[in-house]
Amino acid sequence: MGLKEIGEFGFIRRIQTGCLVRPEGVVKAIGDDAAVFRPEPDRLGLITADLLVERVHFLRDRISGQELGHKSLAVNLSDIAAMGGTAREAIVSLAIPEDCPLAYLDAFYEGMKKLAGKYRVNILGGDTTGSRADLTINVTVIGSVPEAQLLLRSGARIGDIVCATGQLGDSRAGLQLLIDGVDAGEEPWTMLRRAHVRPEPHLEEGRMLAAAGGITAAIDVSDGLSSDIGHIAEESGVGVRLLAEKIPVSDALKTFCTRFDRGDPAAWALAGGEDYCLLCTISPDAADKVCAAFAEAFGRPLHRIGTIVKPGTFEVIDADGRAVPLEKTGWDHFR
Amino acid sequence: MGLKEIGEFGFIRRIQTGCLVRPEGVVKAIGDDAAVFRPEPDRLGLITADLLVERVHFLRDRISGQELGHKSLAVNLSDIAAMGGTAREAIVSLAIPEDCPLAYLDAFYEGMKKLAGKYRVNILGGDTTGSRADLTINVTVIGSVPEAQLLLRSGARIGDIVCATGQLGDSRAGLQLLIDGVDAGEEPWTMLRRAHVRPEPHLEEGRMLAAAGGITAAIDVSDGLSSDIGHIAEESGVGVRLLAEKIPVSDALKTFCTRFDRGDPAAWALAGGEDYCLLCTISPDAADKVCAAFAEAFGRPLHRIGTIVKPGTFEVIDADGRAVPLEKTGWDHFR
Repeated sequence: MGLKEIGEFGFIRRIQTGCLVRPEGVVKAIGDDAAVFRPEPDRLGLITADLLVERVHFLRDRISGQELGHKSLAVNLSDIAAMGGTAREAIVSLAIPEDCPLAYLDAFYEGMKKLAGKYRVNILGGDTTGSRADLTINVTVIGSVPEAQLLLRSGARIGDIVCATGQLGDSRAGLQLLIDGVDAGEEPWTMLRRAHVRPEPHLEEGRMLAAAGGITAAIDVSDGLSSDIGHIAEESGVGVRLLAEKIPVSDALKTFCTRFDRGDPAAWALAGGEDYCLLCTISPDAADKVCAAFAEAFGRPLHRIGTIVKPGTFEVIDADGRAVPLEKTGWDHFR
Repeated sequence: MGLKEIGEFGFIRRIQTGCLVRPEGVVKAIGDDAAVFRPEPDRLGLITADLLVERVHFLRDRISGQELGHKSLAVNLSDIAAMGGTAREAIVSLAIPEDCPLAYLDAFYEGMKKLAGKYRVNILGGDTTGSRADLTINVTVIGSVPEAQLLLRSGARIGDIVCATGQLGDSRAGLQLLIDGVDAGEEPWTMLRRAHVRPEPHLEEGRMLAAAGGITAAIDVSDGLSSDIGHIAEESGVGVRLLAEKIPVSDALKTFCTRFDRGDPAAWALAGGEDYCLLCTISPDAADKVCAAFAEAFGRPLHRIGTIVKPGTFEVIDADGRAVPLEKTGWDHFR
C-alpha cells in the first residue's frame, strides 16, 4: 500500500495518533485550517524553522526514516535550547516524492514522535504535499522562555569564558563515514554515525544554563564551532580566543582521525557542524559556579574552551602556544 | 551576481530590510537561533503552514517572483482568516536551486513583504538552503484570536445557512489558462490569471464574521468548494445542500467557459480550488443580520449558497430543481 492508495487525507489520519503529548495547552490540533493553542502567560514566544532537503542535507538510502524524523525535529529543538527555552508545539511540512515508501514515512513519524514525546512537544499540524524530485521536510517549532532567562547571541563581553555543552566533531566524522560508505555497524563508528543522524538536542542543558544566571550569550552548533562562535563574536561585537587542546573531542573521533589519516581531531571539531550541542559565554565571576552546577546536574563537564577578547582577534591557540587565525569554515549552503 | 557570490549570510542580510512591520511585539527578529516575540495576552494562538513545491504547485516560468512571494504568504493568511484570527508573525523557509536567479528571489521577497505589510505581519525568520531540483517554499504563520471568536470547521448545525465571501472558480480557470499557455495579457483573462497567482486572503472578512456572532463554522476554499464544504460537513457531522444557481461565479469565468467550450461555470466553482475566499455557516436567526453587516462593511454581498441538512445528504440542486450528488472533487496531492 502506498500514498496513492490512502491519499492525502488518509495519510493525515494515519499520522495523527500520538501527536498530542501535552493536550492541556491545545484547543484544536490537526484537522482545521490552523492549529489552536494557549500561549503561556508571562513568557516570551520563540519560533524557529529548519528545512531539510534530500540530496542537500541527507541521502535517503543512508539514513533511516526514524533517524530522519528524529533529526528533523532535533535540529529545531536545538535552536530553542540555544535561547534557553522550552519547546512546546511543532508544525511539520512534508513534500513527498512518489517513490518514497509509506513504511519510510511511518518510520519518519515514529522517530519524530518519540523525540517529541521525550520533550513534551505537541505535533500540532503542518502540510503534506507531493514532490517531483526530493523528499523535503520543514519543521517549525514554537517555544517559550521567561523574559529574564532569554539567551541571545549578542551579549558576550570581553573576559567572558567560552564553554561547550558537549563534544564536537563527531557528527562531521559520522557524515564522512556515510559519504565514504564505511560500514558503521561497529563501535567506534556506530557512535560517530549516530552523532550525525540522531543528534540529541541540549534542551535541558539550555534551560539549566538560562536559569543559572551569568550566561551572556549562547548558540547551538549547527554550522560548526568556528563558524558558530563567529556568530556570537559578530553579534556581540567582540573577538574570540579558543584553546585547541581544550576543545572536547571524543575517543571515537581520535580513532577516526588516526585510522583514516584524517589529521587533527580539533580541526574536525572546529570545522565540523551539526553537533547540536550549545556554546555559551559566561561572565568570569559566574563561570566556576555555573560549571560546577552543570557537572552536578548532568554528570559531565561543561567544557571551558576559550575566552572572549577584544574585537579583531579571532584565533585558536595550538598545543605549542601559537596563535592560529580561526577560519569561519562552517557550512554555507550556496558556496 | 548570484547566490553563490553573496552566500547564505549575504542573502539573509539582503532580505532582512522591511521584514519588521510591527516591531513593538518583537524582541528579536532574524539573526539568532530563534525569533523572539511577545504573545498577546488573553488570546488564543493560531499556527498554520503551507508548503509550495515547484512543478507541483507552480511552474517557475509561469508565475513571477512577486506573485509567488505574494501567494506563498497569502495561502497561510487565508488559513488564519478561516479561524477568525489576526495574522501576526511569519517564518519563511526556502530551498533554492542553483539555477534560480537572485532577481527572482528579490522579487519573491518584494511580493511577500508587500502583502505582509498590508496585514501588519512580521517576517521573523526562517531557513534558507540549497536544493538540487525544485524551488520549495514553506511559510508558517502565527496568529491570534479572542477565544470567544474562534471559528472552527466543526460547529455547523442543521438549518444553518451556507455562505461564501467571494466568487469561486476563477483561480481554477486562471490555472487552466496558464497550463494551456493562453496569453493572459488582456481582460477577462488577466483577472482569472490574477485570481490564481495573486489571491487575496480574506482576513478582514474573517475577522468581521468572527466578531459578528452567529457563525457556527468556517473554512477557506483551498481544495475546492465541494471538497471544502465537505470538510465542514465531516467535522460537524452534518449534510449539505447547495444551490447551483446561487454559487457566485464571475463574468470572466462565464466568458472563459463559453469561449473555450468548458461547460458549466458552476462546475468550475464546485471543483475548482485555490480560491482563498471563506465558506461559513450561520445560524438561521443571525443570517440576515450578518449578511447585511457584511454588505455594509465590504460593499459586496455575502453569498448565500445553501443550507446545512441532516447527515447523509450531500447534494447540489441544479437549475431545474434536480438534486445531484456533490462529489468531493477537490485536490488530493497523492492521487
